[in-house]
Amino acid sequence: MTVLILTNEQDVTADMAVVELNAGGIPVLRLDPAELPGGVGVSGEFAHGAFHGHLSVGGRVVSMAGLRSVWVRRPGTPAARALAASDWLTEEASQSLYGMLRCTDARWMNHPDAARQARHKPWQLWLARACGLPVPATLITTFPRVAREFAERYPDLVVKPVSGAHPDGHGMAVPTTRVRPGEDYRDVAHGPTLLQRRVRKVADIRLTVVGDRLFAARARSEPQAEEADEAVVDVRFNDTAGPWRPVHVPRRVADGVHAYLTRAQLAYGAFDFAEDADGIWWFLECNQSGQFGFVEIETGQRIGRAVAEWLAGEPLGPAVESQGPDPAPHR
Amino acid sequence: MTVLILTNEQDVTADMAVVELNAGGIPVLRLDPAELPGGVGVSGEFAHGAFHGHLSVGGRVVSMAGLRSVWVRRPGTPAARALAASDWLTEEASQSLYGMLRCTDARWMNHPDAARQARHKPWQLWLARACGLPVPATLITTFPRVAREFAERYPDLVVKPVSGAHPDGHGMAVPTTRVRPGEDYRDVAHGPTLLQRRVRKVADIRLTVVGDRLFAARARSEPQAEEADEAVVDVRFNDTAGPWRPVHVPRRVADGVHAYLTRAQLAYGAFDFAEDADGIWWFLECNQSGQFGFVEIETGQRIGRAVAEWLAGEPLGPAVESQGPDPAPHR
Repeated sequence: MTVLILTNEQDVTADMAVVELNAGGIPVLRLDPAELPGGVGVSGEFAHGAFHGHLSVGGRVVSMAGLRSVWVRRPGTPAARALAASDWLTEEASQSLYGMLRCTDARWMNHPDAARQARHKPWQLWLARACGLPVPATLITTFPRVAREFAERYPDLVVKPVSGAHPDGHGMAVPTTRVRPGEDYRDVAHGPTLLQRRVRKVADIRLTVVGDRLFAARARSEPQAEEADEAVVDVRFNDTAGPWRPVHVPRRVADGVHAYLTRAQLAYGAFDFAEDADGIWWFLECNQSGQFGFVEIETGQRIGRAVAEWLAGEPLGPAVESQGPDPAPHR
Repeated sequence: MTVLILTNEQDVTADMAVVELNAGGIPVLRLDPAELPGGVGVSGEFAHGAFHGHLSVGGRVVSMAGLRSVWVRRPGTPAARALAASDWLTEEASQSLYGMLRCTDARWMNHPDAARQARHKPWQLWLARACGLPVPATLITTFPRVAREFAERYPDLVVKPVSGAHPDGHGMAVPTTRVRPGEDYRDVAHGPTLLQRRVRKVADIRLTVVGDRLFAARARSEPQAEEADEAVVDVRFNDTAGPWRPVHVPRRVADGVHAYLTRAQLAYGAFDFAEDADGIWWFLECNQSGQFGFVEIETGQRIGRAVAEWLAGEPLGPAVESQGPDPAPHR
């Protein structure tokens, strides 16, 4: 039974799981949908009441009935590298590949439908709260008046994009920034705007969940950067944040994230929290395809191995040597 | 409690349900996501452990908590008509609108995730067969050799696009066409190709399902067109097809389509079947957003009224006068 990994060739994070699967003797098929048709082939026959599907990469052919799991890591757009690439060919290739994979019994990390739902920020906030995780007061609106009233109730605000995408469309993230006092909010009418009560954080938390296994890491915030007017308060853009260190997960948070992933039907999620001076972890977002390589390298937490074991569906054999200093995964 | 209809202004089919809802005194909010931001506004606050969302169209404001159902008919692309339209603004508007609607208790016709899954043709064929509906032998492949072997086993084949989309991207359908004898199938390597055993049909069947109500219509095929070499065998492109007439749904088919829609989590589906000389209805596809106006007009089946009643969640009052000759819905 084979593990299928859908990702691009440059994805070194996937390598961290592949090396563990290889060491455990689990067959792996790695392919980039961008190579279909071309380097990647697909075939499925529906006849006599049965479905028989096959995938091929570089001459190697694998039966879809023999797939134990599918890891949707960083797949390219189907047919993107085809000789006659077009939107139409992308649609044909996408429907063929993902349509057939949907007919299999393979487990998904993560299923495309669950992944798509999980990207909706308003739904994330709603679900997190429903699962008992503390969520800072948040407004998403196109009404300037409503934004002004919210700012009167919560004077210390940050603004961030709803989608997490960047206006230039180049896949960059937009930093979360503080709102200036006296902002008039007229521009809110031209695009939905997400305003959120600023958490006066003492640390950032990245909680990576693989199946039912939790890996939490904490990085101290620099107080001076945090208190500066209009400072970028987003750890991704803050060079002065402390190093990532493993941290224990409070029981209530563990229960909350397990409930979240169960209801979201996700096998993998990377949660971002802001920790305040009282030790409360405030939910900011859950990225269903969040990176884990930087956490593993800084903390020594064996996240790639946990991913490999989830994909394998069984414990793996002799461990591959750790990539970092302190192998302390939290369960 | 309000029915929300997401569609464009030109959608006259939606009017067929709106007129019934109006007659029944059910509040309706109709909006096109293309008008967000602009003519349409959205606002949602997540605070004190609760979510409060609102929609506005032309000055009218409706609470999302008061939505009984959402009909995703023919919505425009979010932000498509905004002053500063961009891919980024589309993503922001889409996440805001659909993200908040996902937080409500409203019933969906159809939920976006179910709709997306339901568009995958390979999955449709697999699910139809799993639900006991007869499916003609079908191959989807990028392997010329596999295509040739399939053609040897099933010499009388048609070819059609996997996705149903048209190569020119203008939203047109591609006709199903017969495969010439001796085809060499080399081009299959350049794009996944769907080959299907041709059903020697005597009629086309359109079975429209609204919740648990079935409306079947039948149109006789013209034998001469059907047997002509390389004829277009697709009723959508065949001017000589007979008129649509109501027809009784065989029990096995009724059970099959109910199972299909339940497993697909769809509230609405338009099934296309080909009826052969033995009276077998062969499953061709299920379009989760298929048009029903032409069937209602030709057969008098009250499909728009059934949609309205499903959206209302209750039987509607005095009937609006039928749009067609023969009001004979099948249950």
